[in-house]
Amino acid sequence: MLKHYLLTPGPTPVPSEALLAMAKPIIHHRTPQFKEVLKQAVESLRYMFQTKNDVFIFASSGTGAMESSVSNLLSAGDKALVIRGGKFGERFAEICQSYGVIPINIDVEWGEAVDPLQVEKILNENKDIKAVYATLCETSTAVVSDIKAIGEIVSKTDAVLVVDVISSLGSVVFKTDDWKVDVAIGGSQKGLMVPPGLAFITVSAKAMKMVESSTLPKYYFSYKAAKKSVDKDDTPWTPAVSLIIGLVEALKMIKEETLEGALLRQKRMAEATRSAAKALGLELLAPLAASDAVTAIKLPDKIDGVKLVKTMRDIYGVGIAGGQAQLKGKIIRIASMGFMTQWDTIVAISCLEIVLKQMGYDVEFGSGIKAAEEVFSK
Amino acid sequence: MLKHYLLTPGPTPVPSEALLAMAKPIIHHRTPQFKEVLKQAVESLRYMFQTKNDVFIFASSGTGAMESSVSNLLSAGDKALVIRGGKFGERFAEICQSYGVIPINIDVEWGEAVDPLQVEKILNENKDIKAVYATLCETSTAVVSDIKAIGEIVSKTDAVLVVDVISSLGSVVFKTDDWKVDVAIGGSQKGLMVPPGLAFITVSAKAMKMVESSTLPKYYFSYKAAKKSVDKDDTPWTPAVSLIIGLVEALKMIKEETLEGALLRQKRMAEATRSAAKALGLELLAPLAASDAVTAIKLPDKIDGVKLVKTMRDIYGVGIAGGQAQLKGKIIRIASMGFMTQWDTIVAISCLEIVLKQMGYDVEFGSGIKAAEEVFSK
Repeated sequence: MLKHYLLTPGPTPVPSEALLAMAKPIIHHRTPQFKEVLKQAVESLRYMFQTKNDVFIFASSGTGAMESSVSNLLSAGDKALVIRGGKFGERFAEICQSYGVIPINIDVEWGEAVDPLQVEKILNENKDIKAVYATLCETSTAVVSDIKAIGEIVSKTDAVLVVDVISSLGSVVFKTDDWKVDVAIGGSQKGLMVPPGLAFITVSAKAMKMVESSTLPKYYFSYKAAKKSVDKDDTPWTPAVSLIIGLVEALKMIKEETLEGALLRQKRMAEATRSAAKALGLELLAPLAASDAVTAIKLPDKIDGVKLVKTMRDIYGVGIAGGQAQLKGKIIRIASMGFMTQWDTIVAISCLEIVLKQMGYDVEFGSGIKAAEEVFSK
Repeated sequence: MLKHYLLTPGPTPVPSEALLAMAKPIIHHRTPQFKEVLKQAVESLRYMFQTKNDVFIFASSGTGAMESSVSNLLSAGDKALVIRGGKFGERFAEICQSYGVIPINIDVEWGEAVDPLQVEKILNENKDIKAVYATLCETSTAVVSDIKAIGEIVSKTDAVLVVDVISSLGSVVFKTDDWKVDVAIGGSQKGLMVPPGLAFITVSAKAMKMVESSTLPKYYFSYKAAKKSVDKDDTPWTPAVSLIIGLVEALKMIKEETLEGALLRQKRMAEATRSAAKALGLELLAPLAASDAVTAIKLPDKIDGVKLVKTMRDIYGVGIAGGQAQLKGKIIRIASMGFMTQWDTIVAISCLEIVLKQMGYDVEFGSGIKAAEEVFSK
């Protein structure tokens, strides 16, 4: 009998409170009952994003919402600064290119964070940059960037700051308004503890002004249509009713724990994971900019990461993620996001110890766990 | 105690088999387990669409998939023929305009079906039309169009035929390949008995060729990206895992009933609804082109349709839909789609009789039910 533990950086486990709420008979979306649900969802999302701005909910995965931040804000020929330090930063640049927007890329070594001064320098040299695309937690490398510093810089210019917080919302400290972020993009299946299928966008007044002059085509993801509807506790198109009902339940749990409490819980899990990795003689991919939502651990050359992940999942029931693109087979990624506690971390580390040893890596059983327990008992 | 009956034309009731499957612990989307789910979903959708073409699954509502059929097939300045006989036909024209595609509209009286000969005439007069946008069941008017005849006409030209079957897939006879439909667009929350949040697209070889030359921007809804992934039982972006799991369960039920059986069940419900309306002295909005997925019934002038719908829902627990746009307050729409049986129809008609009488309309109790029972006992 396999009992499954999911420690992937999305989807993350969904609490039964949300699962059971979604299993109730469906309700129609144009009813007072659902309007109330939608209102609660938007209010709770404002709390998660720490914003007073409008929040729009799309039935889509995060990528659709990322695209919307190009198609709604910019016009063909516009320049955008894109910070590329992994797969998701690269995605912003690809979207820009699809829309005829000219990306000026800052290419950051995978595993490192962007230097905010570099952002400042490029913005100074290119006064016509309309938008800066950044990633709070780059899921592919487990790097966290200093969005607060970047927000300070961008806010002094005419450009808007767009931040992908899909894998970090609710898991890593993030303050939309305090950090002067114009557009923040979240998803349901990470720190918010809901199945994939919902994306969220928060849009500042400065960004909404840019929407007025954007000439790129959009329809489904139109911020104007979304804004018109959200003011009436409504959506322009049929919303993903059950997922939004699940979201309300999940966010109720986070509000009870408090966002601060949830962030601390996940931070401790990440610290324990990092500490255990080091104790096992493994290096972190991002030692200087480690995210608290997910930890990327480099594997010794002789260990096949694909096989390691597969063994942990299929033989032991412990789901973690491998590396993507050029990191495939070379790293593993263990999440500390959403509906996970220290015992999930303990299980993952114990399983890692056992499988690494089986694969021929020299492990002293319990040494990773010891390091983790020391963190947890602090 | 209110016990809820949902007879709206989407969302429709979700069978507990699907609800409970979606309530199981979430699985990661890049696993052999989920690949198998996705493969089954695509195979079952092929059966529902009656096609051998590729089927793509998007995390979005139907509108997103409608948009994709413009952005993936056409280029700015292209001409498209749009059949507008209701809110959803109009939506195609709006999307075309958003993308700089020139819509040539056939405006059909709300409640009537397009004359296929008119389509032929306009195609003959405009050899440069690249695509024809049609609606099988126009949800706002409950009209069904003769897509088979239109398919015959369009297939003789260089244009492609795009059909919105969102509210009719699985509820009204539709044969993608036999009827020479190039692109058909479905949604999860109607005849397929799953919550909203999934859209489906089937794309013919002729349409895939147009994708090659389309210059409109797209990313999230890119058919090229979808095609590349579906060939590997994968999706380009994080899919709506739980909804797809629910879809597989729901389609399993339809396959057991057989598509033919499901269509007949819904047709009988629609016939009974129409027959009951007539017995109650009410007129159909679309007497000559009535859809078997939903029935639109005109209300006498003195009956406020908004109040009628509200009373049925909030006092009696019976959810039906009112009219949209210019039909607001003037009609009611009772669905016969998805996970509904003749007893749902009986409940709706009985409730309609009681509430109409309360509102001052002259009803002989049981007269609508009698007509319905006669249909059901045939």
